[in-house]
Amino acid sequence: MNNSAFSFELLAQDCDARAGIFHTPHGDIPTPIFAPVGTQAAVKALTPAQVEAAGASLILANTYHLFLRPGSELVAEMGGLHQFMQWQQPILTDSGGFQVFSLAQTRKVDDDGVAFKSHIDGSTKRLTPETSIAVQEQLGADIIMAFDECAHPYDRTYITSAMQRTHRWAERCQKAHVRTDQALFGIVQGGIFPDLREQSAEFIASLGFPGNAIGGLSVGETKAEMAAMLEVVNSILPADKPRYLMGVGAPEDLVEGIQRGIDIFDCVLPTRLARHQAAMTLTGRLNMLNASYAHDPQPIDPTCSCYACRGFSRAYIRHLVVAREILASTLLSIHNITTLLRITTAARQAVLEHRYTQFARDFYLRYSSNSSPMETTS
Amino acid sequence: MNNSAFSFELLAQDCDARAGIFHTPHGDIPTPIFAPVGTQAAVKALTPAQVEAAGASLILANTYHLFLRPGSELVAEMGGLHQFMQWQQPILTDSGGFQVFSLAQTRKVDDDGVAFKSHIDGSTKRLTPETSIAVQEQLGADIIMAFDECAHPYDRTYITSAMQRTHRWAERCQKAHVRTDQALFGIVQGGIFPDLREQSAEFIASLGFPGNAIGGLSVGETKAEMAAMLEVVNSILPADKPRYLMGVGAPEDLVEGIQRGIDIFDCVLPTRLARHQAAMTLTGRLNMLNASYAHDPQPIDPTCSCYACRGFSRAYIRHLVVAREILASTLLSIHNITTLLRITTAARQAVLEHRYTQFARDFYLRYSSNSSPMETTS
Repeated sequence: MNNSAFSFELLAQDCDARAGIFHTPHGDIPTPIFAPVGTQAAVKALTPAQVEAAGASLILANTYHLFLRPGSELVAEMGGLHQFMQWQQPILTDSGGFQVFSLAQTRKVDDDGVAFKSHIDGSTKRLTPETSIAVQEQLGADIIMAFDECAHPYDRTYITSAMQRTHRWAERCQKAHVRTDQALFGIVQGGIFPDLREQSAEFIASLGFPGNAIGGLSVGETKAEMAAMLEVVNSILPADKPRYLMGVGAPEDLVEGIQRGIDIFDCVLPTRLARHQAAMTLTGRLNMLNASYAHDPQPIDPTCSCYACRGFSRAYIRHLVVAREILASTLLSIHNITTLLRITTAARQAVLEHRYTQFARDFYLRYSSNSSPMETTS
Repeated sequence: MNNSAFSFELLAQDCDARAGIFHTPHGDIPTPIFAPVGTQAAVKALTPAQVEAAGASLILANTYHLFLRPGSELVAEMGGLHQFMQWQQPILTDSGGFQVFSLAQTRKVDDDGVAFKSHIDGSTKRLTPETSIAVQEQLGADIIMAFDECAHPYDRTYITSAMQRTHRWAERCQKAHVRTDQALFGIVQGGIFPDLREQSAEFIASLGFPGNAIGGLSVGETKAEMAAMLEVVNSILPADKPRYLMGVGAPEDLVEGIQRGIDIFDCVLPTRLARHQAAMTLTGRLNMLNASYAHDPQPIDPTCSCYACRGFSRAYIRHLVVAREILASTLLSIHNITTLLRITTAARQAVLEHRYTQFARDFYLRYSSNSSPMETTS
């Protein structure tokens, strides 16, 4: 595999926080960056034009979902994911591993791969490192992921064997991958055990991927545990390759992750919260159903200049939520994605100006991680 | 009431078909025109920017719905409907009459008005000609409607008394209306009875409204009955005022209505069909769930240049429908509204060029009024 189509340019580093550019065949990704998720080849409730206007330059699509429906052959036949979903900037697909373990019905894992029942129709399907790569090559994203096993973070025995399997699968994925216009990233596992994370980071780093990811976090561990794992892993992963923290997107986690050397994040949080009437802001989360907004003429966030914050009042957004209008989800999705991208953009600028510690301190002075009742993933 | 803020400019007439401009305080409405419906102060699944990009210059909002939720006082407090929903072009509100008779639970009509139970929470509410006008003045649309009683079209006895009541209410609405920046339209009723329609048109015309509407059609009668009623009514309604056919929006009904002198139409059809996976085109309706589209790389309508038809394939739209993505409703709503506005725009051009008969003939040569299973209103 020749990844000359990709290069990671590190522009500045401030303690462990980094600012860079990841060059891809579909354009440059300024890092650190947050990637909105288009699970089924669509960012929920948004057109690609709206996602782009919210400032996104990288989006994620889920291999598990697209493998089941509409199938990667169809996407390939339609010219690949960029053409299919009309997103001309970079796309990242995950490997399907996480969803096989979190969404699929009964599954059977062995060293070859995973057999599982589709959550859509109960049919039996199979993913292996080789088929995951084949599917991702058909989908045609710019960044693709090695097939991994994501186990419960506290079960050391199982975590150990899952990690070792993930390592063997990473090598098989690397062998199977032939497209030169895609960057295959390896995934570090190891639960919440520093020694396993260290072992995994060393092994994955040794394979020389053009980028590396950290999986198996934000799945039930504490914030302190997540931070500790990031420190162990990022002290080992090569500095000249982008580092991607999978499935993480709460504002405070972006700030903490960047502080520990993460370059790429993705999460369904902004669009999922939007569908549960929560607005993400730089000062915390607003539940737009709150009666205090009923007569509030202000925009969701007076400091924001996204489409949703230009002219629409909180009173109107609340009305849309109460009346169950789809437009509520659309406007809140635009706003929430914009907020996360404002955070990564401001963080990047702070790194470039070597004032990240101050940036993080200022962030926490304003930010309160209050939670709406609907924040849990579901 | 002084309606100097409004004037109807008749640019051309071709047989009974008309092309004009209705000047309003929020801009000019080229006629004939189709108005998308934003029932609850939002066109379903669309941002105002998307509605505008689809070519709309007039939209409708429902007084009944907004009276119940969020309340017209709130809308007034937020600066009126234009500011509240961020639509800067003209808005039309209906009187609430139709929904009181079609949506509300138990209702009691007397000469004073209607008491009914809210379909939202069962609470008892009351609308009279005076309160309907007061509510519409608070909402602040450019065009507002007299409060009317819409009865079942075949019950002559009831239709007669409902028509007479509608006439008395029209006079009361006219008296109650004070805002000079709104045009109050009268509504002709009379079911499917030519003599009643004639009587109603004469009475409503005599009141000298700045525009007149035809209500109580597209509620179960045949296409031939609707056409006959339009001919009777429009031979009486003044030619120098706009004529609005309420609740009608099937492509063939636009062509037939314009042919009989209608200038303004509104209907939930394009957005409702969109949410039931149907695409409206100049050749007929497409059910986007159809398996024949699964591998179809063409846009929904190759002759259309709306956002949904620029790049997105039928295969992708079908995938969104199957995967129940909100984006399916958004893209199909954009497309369907665009289609109806393409029809009224082309019809207008045909009138201006005195070739409307040929236009209507060409339309029918291509158009087949096939129906999707979900087309019925619900």
